[in-house]
Amino acid sequence: MNTFGRLFRIHIFGESHGGAVGINIDGCPAGIPLSKTDFEADLARRKSGAKGTTPRKESDQPELLTGIFENKTTGAPLTILFRNENVRSKDYSNLKKTPRPGHADFVAQHKFGGYADYRGGGHFSGRLTLPLTAAGVVAKKVCENLNIEARLIKAGGESDIESAINKAIEANQSIGGIVECKVNNLPVGLGEPFFDSVESLLSHIVFAIPAIKGIEFGSGFRAAQMTGAAHNDNIIDAKGKTETNHAGGINGGISNGNELEFRVAVKPTSSVSTAQNTMNLQKGEVEALKIEGRHDRCIALRVPPVLEAATAIVLADLMLLEQKAPRVIN
Amino acid sequence: MNTFGRLFRIHIFGESHGGAVGINIDGCPAGIPLSKTDFEADLARRKSGAKGTTPRKESDQPELLTGIFENKTTGAPLTILFRNENVRSKDYSNLKKTPRPGHADFVAQHKFGGYADYRGGGHFSGRLTLPLTAAGVVAKKVCENLNIEARLIKAGGESDIESAINKAIEANQSIGGIVECKVNNLPVGLGEPFFDSVESLLSHIVFAIPAIKGIEFGSGFRAAQMTGAAHNDNIIDAKGKTETNHAGGINGGISNGNELEFRVAVKPTSSVSTAQNTMNLQKGEVEALKIEGRHDRCIALRVPPVLEAATAIVLADLMLLEQKAPRVIN
Amino acid sequence: MNTFGRLFRIHIFGESHGGAVGINIDGCPAGIPLSKTDFEADLARRKSGAKGTTPRKESDQPELLTGIFENKTTGAPLTILFRNENVRSKDYSNLKKTPRPGHADFVAQHKFGGYADYRGGGHFSGRLTLPLTAAGVVAKKVCENLNIEARLIKAGGESDIESAINKAIEANQSIGGIVECKVNNLPVGLGEPFFDSVESLLSHIVFAIPAIKGIEFGSGFRAAQMTGAAHNDNIIDAKGKTETNHAGGINGGISNGNELEFRVAVKPTSSVSTAQNTMNLQKGEVEALKIEGRHDRCIALRVPPVLEAATAIVLADLMLLEQKAPRVIN
Amino acid sequence: MNTFGRLFRIHIFGESHGGAVGINIDGCPAGIPLSKTDFEADLARRKSGAKGTTPRKESDQPELLTGIFENKTTGAPLTILFRNENVRSKDYSNLKKTPRPGHADFVAQHKFGGYADYRGGGHFSGRLTLPLTAAGVVAKKVCENLNIEARLIKAGGESDIESAINKAIEANQSIGGIVECKVNNLPVGLGEPFFDSVESLLSHIVFAIPAIKGIEFGSGFRAAQMTGAAHNDNIIDAKGKTETNHAGGINGGISNGNELEFRVAVKPTSSVSTAQNTMNLQKGEVEALKIEGRHDRCIALRVPPVLEAATAIVLADLMLLEQKAPRVIN
Repeated sequence: MNTFGRLFRIHIFGESHGGAVGINIDGCPAGIPLSKTDFEADLARRKSGAKGTTPRKESDQPELLTGIFENKTTGAPLTILFRNENVRSKDYSNLKKTPRPGHADFVAQHKFGGYADYRGGGHFSGRLTLPLTAAGVVAKKVCENLNIEARLIKAGGESDIESAINKAIEANQSIGGIVECKVNNLPVGLGEPFFDSVESLLSHIVFAIPAIKGIEFGSGFRAAQMTGAAHNDNIIDAKGKTETNHAGGINGGISNGNELEFRVAVKPTSSVSTAQNTMNLQKGEVEALKIEGRHDRCIALRVPPVLEAATAIVLADLMLLEQKAPRVIN
Repeated sequence: MNTFGRLFRIHIFGESHGGAVGINIDGCPAGIPLSKTDFEADLARRKSGAKGTTPRKESDQPELLTGIFENKTTGAPLTILFRNENVRSKDYSNLKKTPRPGHADFVAQHKFGGYADYRGGGHFSGRLTLPLTAAGVVAKKVCENLNIEARLIKAGGESDIESAINKAIEANQSIGGIVECKVNNLPVGLGEPFFDSVESLLSHIVFAIPAIKGIEFGSGFRAAQMTGAAHNDNIIDAKGKTETNHAGGINGGISNGNELEFRVAVKPTSSVSTAQNTMNLQKGEVEALKIEGRHDRCIALRVPPVLEAATAIVLADLMLLEQKAPRVIN
Repeated sequence: MNTFGRLFRIHIFGESHGGAVGINIDGCPAGIPLSKTDFEADLARRKSGAKGTTPRKESDQPELLTGIFENKTTGAPLTILFRNENVRSKDYSNLKKTPRPGHADFVAQHKFGGYADYRGGGHFSGRLTLPLTAAGVVAKKVCENLNIEARLIKAGGESDIESAINKAIEANQSIGGIVECKVNNLPVGLGEPFFDSVESLLSHIVFAIPAIKGIEFGSGFRAAQMTGAAHNDNIIDAKGKTETNHAGGINGGISNGNELEFRVAVKPTSSVSTAQNTMNLQKGEVEALKIEGRHDRCIALRVPPVLEAATAIVLADLMLLEQKAPRVIN
Repeated sequence: MNTFGRLFRIHIFGESHGGAVGINIDGCPAGIPLSKTDFEADLARRKSGAKGTTPRKESDQPELLTGIFENKTTGAPLTILFRNENVRSKDYSNLKKTPRPGHADFVAQHKFGGYADYRGGGHFSGRLTLPLTAAGVVAKKVCENLNIEARLIKAGGESDIESAINKAIEANQSIGGIVECKVNNLPVGLGEPFFDSVESLLSHIVFAIPAIKGIEFGSGFRAAQMTGAAHNDNIIDAKGKTETNHAGGINGGISNGNELEFRVAVKPTSSVSTAQNTMNLQKGEVEALKIEGRHDRCIALRVPPVLEAATAIVLADLMLLEQKAPRVIN
């Protein structure tokens, strides 16, 4: 469902063109200083204005609706709302009739018996990464001694991001990318032996982010081509420091104190300018669909702050579970 | 923790060299015919005897301890036990003193304050995939109209599995591999929009399997190099059939009725014959460690039935959630 | 935490004198017709204006913020907000300094390190029964074939409610009461054998309602004085109909198809006009505290719609779990 | 389902006349000294041999199957098994044909489509309180500084327990009783504001115990007859000590540091010697049923250790949640 986490537990809600998108954080420690300005940096990174992104015009101002008093979290559920302001009145019913390839239009209507809000992707919209990013801002404060950093390391298969974007713009194409996330200063012992391994929890939330198609930890898919002797990380001090880091900071699902490292594959934006075939469900025949408007050339550009948020949410929860983050900030 | 699933919910327990490993299935539909012979095929595939695997000598006989009556599931919790028989009496305390590179020895002792059962990896042992595979046998019966099939498609980077294994044996090395899983006959609409996407749930359980370092759905990491026009799957009939299947059968986290397809990266076996450096925590200095005995050359050979089980467990749960599998079999 | 339910899952949030109180329903079936007018009857019963109640002046208009489209639920999380309008600007910091006897003032500050919102009881306020009642309106639609009815059967120990209220008003006292809830038309088989018995789930949510001090099912505490022969309900038809109903419609935690019947004890309103001793935590000495303003004489008068809501929420969840309510309304 | 708890989480399984009954504890802190002898006292109290009880002849020896190493808990799931030894081979199919009044026979078969194990009540048997009591022994060690004590305060409506039992034996009747539980030394701040109030959690697990029909906290049902001025507990020191304890140690769902106090109503044993009418489902007509064998005269005699266990399980979980009990014992 729309819930994630055990002690630091988030509930996400809202639609792209409904009244609002938002998130509710249950189990947030009391006493965390929090004001609107705290959200500015990460929300701005997500919104971006970089070449290759075309966010809709929204002020993206968080409303701290509940769980906050005198600019501190109270320990009661924290609700953060983003009212949708720039909702165009145009007719979106086409999305129900001719589902867009690569989007959730078809499955949404099918799953929910035709009742899903189809406007702008409804509850499936990438706009829901906005409240997720906001929850990440809070989560980062819960595990403030950790250093979480994600960045786009490849776009369209190239390491020169700027050139790849320019080429995509010229060719009137959308492209995908690879985002890498690293976390330093993690204690040894986060995560559970089996189902709640660090990889399990991170991948669970990461695949909630629209457009993610793959994830790998440490040496990842390259590990499949290595020998054990080459892959194993020799332990070189009493705190568990390793010579190499093919494991990506995790053994047996548990953080080992070295740098946590993982990468995700982001598919190219599904909304493209060229015509594509899809079923017209009303007529019962295939027809060419052209999606109007301007679209992100490379949605991966906006993924880093979302990925950091997802990571912080998992780690805040694990730090609380291990009693390494307090339930009340003093 | 050691629990997974919402309606078809499994609890795993046990240690490699303790009394038993086992699994408890809560929410198992009543009326499923079940006897020991049902487990033989998948347990044999997991145990294997193929070149490159060296399982310890265990009969691996499942004991159907609770939740079964007159060879049918009763709807009460189903407990499946595997007694450990071939537990050697040798001294394993070395694993606590000199943690093996690539294994969970170090993190296990650290996380559990030195109380973890270190013998043969304890609760972190690959032996826990035995009850997981058993639960998969039951899950497959819950979603018996689905066709779930996993196979090793690469070993040590090569498609010729046999040759790769032979080379590894000759070179006295362990190697990794890629296992692919495909599911046919899935209904449209499984999975939830955000956190409980099909990818989220599958990756969550998949990373519980020891040695998995990456997962990708459909075109996966290749998607990051594609253009949107090339990646989008055109919809060509009213049931949502697509021309291509870059999405791997999932849009917006929801099954779209096409073939579900994903691949996992399996790292090379961590137990290797060559000496590796690690900390001697007692002496406080690095020393060369040589792990005795024979080891799997390619643990990936044994992953397919485990991956099928993990997949079946997720899908059984989702089928029950969507009311597409009954709570009582008639 | 602030979450309840497995398939029909509610998250409650908000404070008495903050921006809003609200509730989020995850797993709500799609296609349920829903508009503001649907909430009027139950919200009016809760708000009341009856003798003995003095609700604050709030319009209590539900805002259907997310999860609704064209007046039908979409299957996405349904968020219902009630903005707090009549929030007085007076200084409430006294509640932190001199905690009111019978209230949560003391424990709230202690638990949350002094960061709890103390104004009007904050997150502990009876005002949170407003969104709970709203969620009940939706839940009743999920299990619309059930007939759920709660009523106040005793106030201040008397069956003549009106006379008891009048006496309390005259004596300038607050009084408690007993509320009984009955449900007809329940199918056999709701509830789980052990921890999720119908009694377990109902009592769990019922004790979330402020002021409830006890609950009993069927013959309840009287059963402790009966003999087995007198207490057992003879089964008199093939559908499980019983001659008597001492069990209150539940055997072994499972609904047996007879009328579900339970009663709750409601304590007298804690806010009273007479002076009471409490600690002044600032001065470190006991002092007499007088709570100003007008207060409910008998909060139990307002409990019936809240109790119906709590009951409907449990039963909606159980009906979905047993696949006796659909996930999409057609 | 058969799971309870968030951090200290138990899974119960087994049947009265199957292979075993047992419990699995996930999230049990590592390093707790544990051996079979630790279980003797509470299991003996539950088994009893007191006048009025007729337990079947079972050795009730706990098998500590997993999660234990060198007589200490390891932090991995702890499994405790009780093999059923004294399982009579007699034919129990009568219970399916003519369901016993007051028992779960009818609902069990209905809910599980006729596949439930009916022998001796199967999974619904009071025998499952055996593993619950065992889990309580472990839970008590987690919150070892708490003093949890339950005792039978009334039987058949009388305070003189012995006399009441004797009368019941003479009259060849079964009788009910009231069991009271008190906990001292609880810290302030356990429990959550709304759904996970201390009362909610305790009542949830308490109603899992067979034969419980009611629960009340502090003044309980008497509160419904009191005035607010009489019921409120004046706070008389800075630690929250109150003059009276009508609240039973809980305000707003949170422990207030005073004695926790609650009572449960236990119905008379359903198995009685006199003939009772029930449906013969095979013949489709009502017939007189006589239940053979000797039965407990007063099952309430055996409830105290079970109630203590249930209480300890809730409190262990809450102590861990509040970080007042450690995840590793040093």
